[in-house]
Amino acid sequence: MSKYKYLKEQVYEANMEIPKEELAIVTFGNVSGIDRAAGAVAIKPSGIPYHRLRPEDIVVVDLDNVVIEGSMRPSSDTKTHTLLYKSFPSIGGVCHTHSTYAVAWAQAIRPIPNLGTTHADHLTAAIPVTEVMSDEMIEGNYELETGNQILDLFAAQGLSYEEVEMVLVACHGPFTWGKDPAKAIYNSVVLEEIARMAYLTLQINPSAGTIKQSLIDKHYFRKHGKNAYYGQE
Amino acid sequence: MSKYKYLKEQVYEANMEIPKEELAIVTFGNVSGIDRAAGAVAIKPSGIPYHRLRPEDIVVVDLDNVVIEGSMRPSSDTKTHTLLYKSFPSIGGVCHTHSTYAVAWAQAIRPIPNLGTTHADHLTAAIPVTEVMSDEMIEGNYELETGNQILDLFAAQGLSYEEVEMVLVACHGPFTWGKDPAKAIYNSVVLEEIARMAYLTLQINPSAGTIKQSLIDKHYFRKHGKNAYYGQE
Amino acid sequence: MSKYKYLKEQVYEANMEIPKEELAIVTFGNVSGIDRAAGAVAIKPSGIPYHRLRPEDIVVVDLDNVVIEGSMRPSSDTKTHTLLYKSFPSIGGVCHTHSTYAVAWAQAIRPIPNLGTTHADHLTAAIPVTEVMSDEMIEGNYELETGNQILDLFAAQGLSYEEVEMVLVACHGPFTWGKDPAKAIYNSVVLEEIARMAYLTLQINPSAGTIKQSLIDKHYFRKHGKNAYYGQE
Amino acid sequence: MSKYKYLKEQVYEANMEIPKEELAIVTFGNVSGIDRAAGAVAIKPSGIPYHRLRPEDIVVVDLDNVVIEGSMRPSSDTKTHTLLYKSFPSIGGVCHTHSTYAVAWAQAIRPIPNLGTTHADHLTAAIPVTEVMSDEMIEGNYELETGNQILDLFAAQGLSYEEVEMVLVACHGPFTWGKDPAKAIYNSVVLEEIARMAYLTLQINPSAGTIKQSLIDKHYFRKHGKNAYYGQE
Repeated sequence: MSKYKYLKEQVYEANMEIPKEELAIVTFGNVSGIDRAAGAVAIKPSGIPYHRLRPEDIVVVDLDNVVIEGSMRPSSDTKTHTLLYKSFPSIGGVCHTHSTYAVAWAQAIRPIPNLGTTHADHLTAAIPVTEVMSDEMIEGNYELETGNQILDLFAAQGLSYEEVEMVLVACHGPFTWGKDPAKAIYNSVVLEEIARMAYLTLQINPSAGTIKQSLIDKHYFRKHGKNAYYGQE
Repeated sequence: MSKYKYLKEQVYEANMEIPKEELAIVTFGNVSGIDRAAGAVAIKPSGIPYHRLRPEDIVVVDLDNVVIEGSMRPSSDTKTHTLLYKSFPSIGGVCHTHSTYAVAWAQAIRPIPNLGTTHADHLTAAIPVTEVMSDEMIEGNYELETGNQILDLFAAQGLSYEEVEMVLVACHGPFTWGKDPAKAIYNSVVLEEIARMAYLTLQINPSAGTIKQSLIDKHYFRKHGKNAYYGQE
Repeated sequence: MSKYKYLKEQVYEANMEIPKEELAIVTFGNVSGIDRAAGAVAIKPSGIPYHRLRPEDIVVVDLDNVVIEGSMRPSSDTKTHTLLYKSFPSIGGVCHTHSTYAVAWAQAIRPIPNLGTTHADHLTAAIPVTEVMSDEMIEGNYELETGNQILDLFAAQGLSYEEVEMVLVACHGPFTWGKDPAKAIYNSVVLEEIARMAYLTLQINPSAGTIKQSLIDKHYFRKHGKNAYYGQE
Repeated sequence: MSKYKYLKEQVYEANMEIPKEELAIVTFGNVSGIDRAAGAVAIKPSGIPYHRLRPEDIVVVDLDNVVIEGSMRPSSDTKTHTLLYKSFPSIGGVCHTHSTYAVAWAQAIRPIPNLGTTHADHLTAAIPVTEVMSDEMIEGNYELETGNQILDLFAAQGLSYEEVEMVLVACHGPFTWGKDPAKAIYNSVVLEEIARMAYLTLQINPSAGTIKQSLIDKHYFRKHGKNAYYGQE
């Protein structure tokens, strides 16, 4: 039996949320999870439709993107996932989808402003969007550079990956992460809804703007940090 | 057996309408109900996804927000619910969701004008939106102040809570109420549809305005008051 | 056994398409059918949710709106239905819904222009919208006057009810009809889709206009009249 | 047993994807497939709703549109399909739908610009839209001329039918094709999603434009051609 059986099942379950939550059509999304002790990342195989995916199809790679278990080719986005794992030491899962509203903001190359408490419940900042990648980066090690583009953005804006667990890659779409694969896909669900609400809000009132800092802080810290009182923990 | 069993089941059923009617993703909504004789309010526990919720998980609090039955923490919005029960003596249920179109109007900080008979079948007024809360209110007893914000709005605009069973809290989302938990969630379903219709109407014709008073009155009083002739009662 | 059993079952089936096709939430729509020989109209009872509706609940009225079979109150829109049956001698079914996009156009008080072949497959004209009703009509015999408003519109614009089987009542919503209840609800499904397509088209290109007459005629007469060649009949 | 049994089953399965993927209401779409050796095209019968369609109902015609198997009339769009098979020698399936967002762009008579990687994963060009057909073409052999309109567009713009497997017919809707019926309907699913994303993108940022060539090429050639590395083949 595979020593990665539990991880592969977790990653399988998280991938199956993509079609269930309507976050991508056909094959346009993938979730991974990491076993930090083993240095092993389990990820969806490339190009397999969700309705044909089985737990045993999940591919395991090391942090250098070498397949260590599985007969299929891993997701073409694997290098982006592994770079995020290497750079964000406390995360356990990464998710990439082409969910419709998040993609629309990414294609519009616009950050999603914090327009209400649904957003503030999850992060205080606007949901950031990367710069358009240079030709050199695109024509080079593209999927690795996609990860670098995210890292550069977080560095330039002074964002914490532990607070901001989501990003839009310009002209492409969203990446999200979290403590485990389930949290990564949860963040993709939340991002898509925030993206849709923000779209509609600005259609109704084009001058709607970022809500006040006290309201952002109230909602964010109701759910996060030592004084949180939302939920059961 | 719990003396609140019937109430808890009613509240459970009403909460399960939230995902069924697609009024909120993940955990973003809650319904409560009150036993006026016992001074007991049954409400969803905080942060529990609907697919894991069971009738016995519903928490019972008194009107001072003290848990009198249940092992879980009640909804973080409990103080808003109990204030509404104390202030609106004839209501039996309260519902709060983050339904997409209602949130968009709330984030746009715009009341929803009465643009047609679907709206007028339920209320004569525009669906009101509160002021943005002051920093003092946000940083103080936030959930209680959310209720006060609603009460202040109804007082300032001379609205009747028995006619207007729905409100938008600015930058946040909708609250609705009614004679029992089922009516409270019914009003959230109706509000979301009115919000969506109003959005589309103003996209098609930005100068569409409030319909004439005679049409509002005709539809409202067809369904409400002693001369009502809609339905079977 | 009821002599209207067959008609009531047809009308029941057509009403159950309303929630299935998502043409209205809760109770906001009704379909009727007529037995011309008996002068009997079968219609949904007022205010009953679709999931509780049973074939035996369908109410039968005569053309003067007097109940001749059934223990429930008929739809509050019954007088509109019976006036249409009296005025449009070849129709066998009538449908009224509050479907979202059709209502948006009705609330915008804008006819839906013929922007493409999906529309032209069903009618050559724009989908017309009535005038806003006068206070006298609203405060008088409202549901009858709603029918009169439709008749006045068809007379004023020289429209044939056999070609144009759908109309928007200003500030209210759509009515459709056809040779039987199934065709009436079919027309409501088609109208909602045409309304949605027209909305999106004008958002993409605000100067999109009515398509050329030759294309309208080609598509309409491919499906209608003696030279039709669409379908199996 | 029919010598076209396998082809008819493939075509049946592909047609049943239309309602499952919500690409058309009622009967507004059809898929065909070709057996090149036999010169036989299997296609949906005209006007039959998907829920009543059976594999044995699929009609087989030759490339001159003469029925060679089946008791029903073939789709009214058959001549468009057969012309595409005759002109595009490597394709095995053709699909036509009235999917909502693709129709909206067709009615707007606007090509869909390449705004992101979801688009570039499938084709490098904008999704083209034909000219409005002349009265002569419409009043003549309309369905054949619809095909000619597509061919003229591809010739005029120098497009390859092997790269661009989708087109919008002005004022009408989309046609897609591919190596087999399953790929043809797959392309209709993808086109509808691209059309929806492009619509939303331009609503958020009306000045969003075609992405840079290097990004288009990266994504297109990741999935196509001899250096492709997406998927399992």
